[in-house]
Amino acid sequence: MDKREMALKLHRDNKGKLEIVSKVPVTNGEELSLAYTPGVAEPCKEIEKNKEDVYLYTAKGNTVAVITDGSAVLGLGDIGPEASLPVMEGKSILFKEFGNIDSIPICIDSNDVEDIIKTVKLISPSLGGINLEDISAPRCFEIEERLKAELDIPVFHDDQHGTAVVVLAGILNSVRLLDKDMSELKIVVNGSGAAGIAITKLLLKVGVGDVILCDTKGAIYEGRDNMNSTKIEMASITNRGKESGTLSDVIVGKDVFVGVSAPNSLTQAMVKTMGKDAVVFALSNPVPEIYPDQAKAAGARIVATGRSDFPNQINNVLAFPGIFRGALDIRAKAITDEMKIAAAEAIASIVQYDELSEDYIIPDPFNREVVKRVAKAVEFAAMENGNC
Amino acid sequence: MDKREMALKLHRDNKGKLEIVSKVPVTNGEELSLAYTPGVAEPCKEIEKNKEDVYLYTAKGNTVAVITDGSAVLGLGDIGPEASLPVMEGKSILFKEFGNIDSIPICIDSNDVEDIIKTVKLISPSLGGINLEDISAPRCFEIEERLKAELDIPVFHDDQHGTAVVVLAGILNSVRLLDKDMSELKIVVNGSGAAGIAITKLLLKVGVGDVILCDTKGAIYEGRDNMNSTKIEMASITNRGKESGTLSDVIVGKDVFVGVSAPNSLTQAMVKTMGKDAVVFALSNPVPEIYPDQAKAAGARIVATGRSDFPNQINNVLAFPGIFRGALDIRAKAITDEMKIAAAEAIASIVQYDELSEDYIIPDPFNREVVKRVAKAVEFAAMENGNC
Repeated sequence: MDKREMALKLHRDNKGKLEIVSKVPVTNGEELSLAYTPGVAEPCKEIEKNKEDVYLYTAKGNTVAVITDGSAVLGLGDIGPEASLPVMEGKSILFKEFGNIDSIPICIDSNDVEDIIKTVKLISPSLGGINLEDISAPRCFEIEERLKAELDIPVFHDDQHGTAVVVLAGILNSVRLLDKDMSELKIVVNGSGAAGIAITKLLLKVGVGDVILCDTKGAIYEGRDNMNSTKIEMASITNRGKESGTLSDVIVGKDVFVGVSAPNSLTQAMVKTMGKDAVVFALSNPVPEIYPDQAKAAGARIVATGRSDFPNQINNVLAFPGIFRGALDIRAKAITDEMKIAAAEAIASIVQYDELSEDYIIPDPFNREVVKRVAKAVEFAAMENGNC
Repeated sequence: MDKREMALKLHRDNKGKLEIVSKVPVTNGEELSLAYTPGVAEPCKEIEKNKEDVYLYTAKGNTVAVITDGSAVLGLGDIGPEASLPVMEGKSILFKEFGNIDSIPICIDSNDVEDIIKTVKLISPSLGGINLEDISAPRCFEIEERLKAELDIPVFHDDQHGTAVVVLAGILNSVRLLDKDMSELKIVVNGSGAAGIAITKLLLKVGVGDVILCDTKGAIYEGRDNMNSTKIEMASITNRGKESGTLSDVIVGKDVFVGVSAPNSLTQAMVKTMGKDAVVFALSNPVPEIYPDQAKAAGARIVATGRSDFPNQINNVLAFPGIFRGALDIRAKAITDEMKIAAAEAIASIVQYDELSEDYIIPDPFNREVVKRVAKAVEFAAMENGNC
C-alpha cells in the first residue's frame, strides 16, 4: 500500500481521529446523581456565584479550540471548512499527545472577518484558549488582533507565531554555533504571508541587525508601489537601507535566509552571494526553496527545512503544545511576545552546547523534554509580565 | 461527606468531566506523517472533491454538539453560559456512555435568537448533529424550527422532545396495562413551557382523544386572554370542548395528568376528581407536583416522576442517546415526529407484557437494551420517511 492509501485507510478505518470520553464513571444511579442531576447543580451554583470557578469545576481551563475557516490549509489553499477538518483533527490530537490539552476542531462556514470574530467570541465561555489555524492573510491578522483585544483567554494564530517561535529557536542556536552577534545579523525573509510577517516581527523584537522582507515582487521598502496596509507597516520597520530589487539583488552579503514562500525560489547562485557562514531556512513544504545538499554545495553552513527527512526540521509541534500548556497552567490572559521569546529560548536550550552542530540546531519533535521546558519558560514569562 | 460536597469534589478533582483523546497513535515520525502532514492532505483532497466524504474520513458523523445559552438550566433558571457548563459536560458524557456518541458542549454567550442560530449554523461543518439544551421558551421554539429548516443535520431540543418521547412511552404502557383506548384518552398537561408544548403536540400526533394544556392562569382555550403566539397556536389544536378555569376545574374526569410545572401543584383533592384508573405523571424535579404515595392514596393507579428513588422514572437518557445513535447511523437529515414516535414505542416495548405493572411501565435508565432498540427503531422510521 502506498503512503496515500495508508493515510486514507487510517482516517477511514477510525472514522476520523478524535474521540470525546468521560473522565468520571456514570454506570449506576448513584454515579449519575453526582455527575448529572441533581448533584451537577452544585458546581453550577458555585460558578454562578463566582464565574472564575468555571476553571475549578469544568474542563474549560484545559480546552483549546482549533479554529479555521479552511481558507489556507497546508499547501492545499482555500478548500473550505469540511475539507479542512482532517487537518484540524490532526492538530487537536497533537495538542493532546504533546501537551495533554483537550482540543476540539471548529470549522467555521464563513470567510467573513466579522462572522469569524463574533462566532469565536460567542462560543468562548467553555474554552480555555483559541488556536487559530489555516486562515488566510491578511484576514488572519485582524481576526487575531481583535480577538486578543476582546477576549481574556489566550488567542494564538499558530501559522504565524508557532512558526516564528521555532524559526527564532533555530536562529538562536545558529548564532550560538557560528559565534555571530544577533544585533549585527542581516536577514532576508522571503514570503510576506502570515508566517513571514510574524517571523520578521519576532526577529526585530529580539533585536536582530536588520530584516528585509520580500514578496513575489521583491524587497519591501518604504515608498514601494503595490503594498497593502500590512506591507506598508512592515516597510516602516524593516529594511533600514531601503534596498530595492528582487530577492537575488537583496540577498547579496546577508547572513540568514528564511524562506516561507515557494518551491525552488532560492537558487545556488543566490546562496553563493550570501555572507560568510550563511544560514538557510528553506521552509516551503514539501518542496523547499532549495534542497539542503544544493544549499550546502553553494556555501551555506547551516540548512533547516520543514521536512522530517532532513536534519534541522522546523516543526511547529515544538512550540504550540508547550506554549498553550504553560499559558493554561498559569491562566495567562494572552500569549505575549515575551512568552513567545521565552518559548524559543527554551526550545533552543534543549540542544546542549556540546551537542550543537550544523545538523543539530533544533531538537527532535518527539523529544518529550521540549514541552515541559517550553511550558515552564512560558509560565515564568507570563508571571514576569503580570499577564495572569 | 454530604451529597453536595461529594458532587463538588467529583467535579473539582477531575477538573470537569470531559476529555478529548486521539483514536490513532502519533508517537513517531511515521505515524505523524499519516495522521498529520503530509498524509493528512489525502483525506482533505477527497473531501474537497466530494463534500459527503467528510463522513468517511472524519469524526463529524459521530459528533453532536450540546448547545445552550444557559438560560433555563435544570431547576436553576437563567444562570448564564459559564455556570451551565457542568450540566452540558454531564449531557456530553451521557451521550458517550449511553450512545457511544462523541459530544462537545458549546455554551453561547448570547441570549439573542439570531446570534444563537447564526453561531450554530457557522460551526456546523464539523458536527453530525445538534442537541439544543436548556434554552428558555419561547426562544427555543424559533431557534429549533429555524435550525431544522436551514441545516441538513439532525437538530433536536431535548428538553422538548426527549421528555415528550419518554412521556409517550410511559403513556403507551399505561394504556396497555389499564386496557384503555388511546383515541379516547383525555389528558391534562400542566405547564406550557418547552416540555409541555412538545408533549402535547406528540400526544396529539399519536391520536389521543384530547389534551387540555394549562399554564399558571389555568386552561388554555381559543379566545382566552393573555396568550402569546405559541399559546394561541396550542389553543387552536387542543381543548376541543373549550373548557376554561383552573387546573382543579379542568382535571375533573380526566384519565391522565402530565405535570411539567411546579412542586406540589397537584393536590389529592384534584386527583380524587379524575376518572377511573387515573394516571399521574408528576415530573417537576426534585419536588414533584404530587408525591407518589399521596397520589396513590387519592386514587391514582399509576404514578411516574422524574426521580430515581421512586418507581417509573421518566428520564430523558432513555431517549436521546438512542435517537441520535439511530439518526447518525442512518445519516438522517432531521429527527421527525415519526422517528420520535418509533423511539417511544421502542422504549415501551422493552417492558414485556408479563412484566408490566403499576410500578414498572418504563425501563430502567441503565437497561443497555434500550439504546440499541431505540436506535434501530429510529433508523427504520427514517428509512420509511425517506429522511436519509
